Amino acid sequence: MDVILKENERIDDLERNGYRIIQNSRKFCFGMDAVLLCGFVREAEQNREWDRIADLGTGTGIIPLLLHGRLVGKEKIPSGKQIVGLEIQPDMQEMAVRSVRLNGLEEEIRILEGDIKEAAALLGRGRFEVVTSNPPYMKQGGGIANPESSKAISRHEVLCTFEDVAAQAADLLVPGGRFYLVHRPERLAELMEILRKCRLEPKRLRMVHSFADADATMVLIEAARGGGTFLKVEKPLIIYKDRNVYTDEILEIYYY
Amino acid sequence: MDVILKENERIDDLERNGYRIIQNSRKFCFGMDAVLLCGFVREAEQNREWDRIADLGTGTGIIPLLLHGRLVGKEKIPSGKQIVGLEIQPDMQEMAVRSVRLNGLEEEIRILEGDIKEAAALLGRGRFEVVTSNPPYMKQGGGIANPESSKAISRHEVLCTFEDVAAQAADLLVPGGRFYLVHRPERLAELMEILRKCRLEPKRLRMVHSFADADATMVLIEAARGGGTFLKVEKPLIIYKDRNVYTDEILEIYYY
Repeated sequence: MDVILKENERIDDLERNGYRIIQNSRKFCFGMDAVLLCGFVREAEQNREWDRIADLGTGTGIIPLLLHGRLVGKEKIPSGKQIVGLEIQPDMQEMAVRSVRLNGLEEEIRILEGDIKEAAALLGRGRFEVVTSNPPYMKQGGGIANPESSKAISRHEVLCTFEDVAAQAADLLVPGGRFYLVHRPERLAELMEILRKCRLEPKRLRMVHSFADADATMVLIEAARGGGTFLKVEKPLIIYKDRNVYTDEILEIYYY
Repeated sequence: MDVILKENERIDDLERNGYRIIQNSRKFCFGMDAVLLCGFVREAEQNREWDRIADLGTGTGIIPLLLHGRLVGKEKIPSGKQIVGLEIQPDMQEMAVRSVRLNGLEEEIRILEGDIKEAAALLGRGRFEVVTSNPPYMKQGGGIANPESSKAISRHEVLCTFEDVAAQAADLLVPGGRFYLVHRPERLAELMEILRKCRLEPKRLRMVHSFADADATMVLIEAARGGGTFLKVEKPLIIYKDRNVYTDEILEIYYY
């Protein structure tokens, strides 16, 4: 399939189903957090039924692509099912559309341009079994050099706060539907409070540590819309077993 | 020193400074959670100044005794400093008083009979640098065989809820003072929300796992009265490195 690459763009192999992704080295590129978030989504293992998945702030489209690989595999997505990514930055959205086309997944993954704050109005209320998000981690501060830059919008709460993301996720989900997110442990207390405020009850949590004896650098959370209070804190996810040597679990998440 | 032992009571060695404790095998005996909580209190390492520590729901008095060993060591507590334990059950309070006397610490540790819900009124508002608690973990349910039993009161929220404990801890603390608690991860989201509601900002958290590849069974939390939002999630605390073999860190906490 022919693909148009623009300036500073490259194609990376996702090492899954032969999928590839277009990234622009001058803009926000996906990181390990998006990959670990997809590894944390358990719909496949648990045979939970789903028809529609929404990814809020999809950026390069990495999460829809990886989730498609994980949940659908090499087969065609069953009729009626769909993965939708929402991205506010037109250039990122357009690039993600080209990545979807590059993999021949136009009928299975839709990448829409739009604001997270209007996600439920754009995509439909109470129609998704799963919502995912790798939202901006940092509070908006005065110190951002260029608040309009792609990297700033992806990393800082310039255009939406976590409460905006959680409120829209809750509106998108069916009762009992799952919201999966990755965030920074530094904000965990606040995240918990906001999730509960949005009727998203944290049900499963996993801390991610670079080494077994290091502080956590990421946290993976699964919350259920309208769920009861009971949080399962799973075994820690350790990234390296030695300097520059990934643990077996990380290798499994990347290359299963 | 002579000590009176009542029916079903025994003396256990705390393996610290030669301290001993009286326990009644028919009533609530301290567990690893109290020991790990004391190991999590960092006032000693950080040279934080403290004059007064309160332990809410002190039971056998285990936390005041271990904290005394950890923070004061074999020396006499400096003049003006004091560790206070509050316990609502008269028989437990009386037994804890005998344990304190057994160790010759009557001037350094006071064990008072009283209700956690009145802690600030009994002990004084804004006068403590540190508050600790190993509160009842379980919500009050209809299934408690005997809600007046000592074990039920220690384990279930029969006489006070976590919100009561947190609200009193906040009232007891000086601004910036620290509340240390141990609880169940299942309730973490709710605990975070309640702590923040009580102006106790979670600042440091540690998950406790029986094994490196097992779900967490306990969570240790340090919250600061009126602190800013920034939570440090420390390396996981693993109890066993092999079946029945403690990790070095657990041995260090128990027998340092």
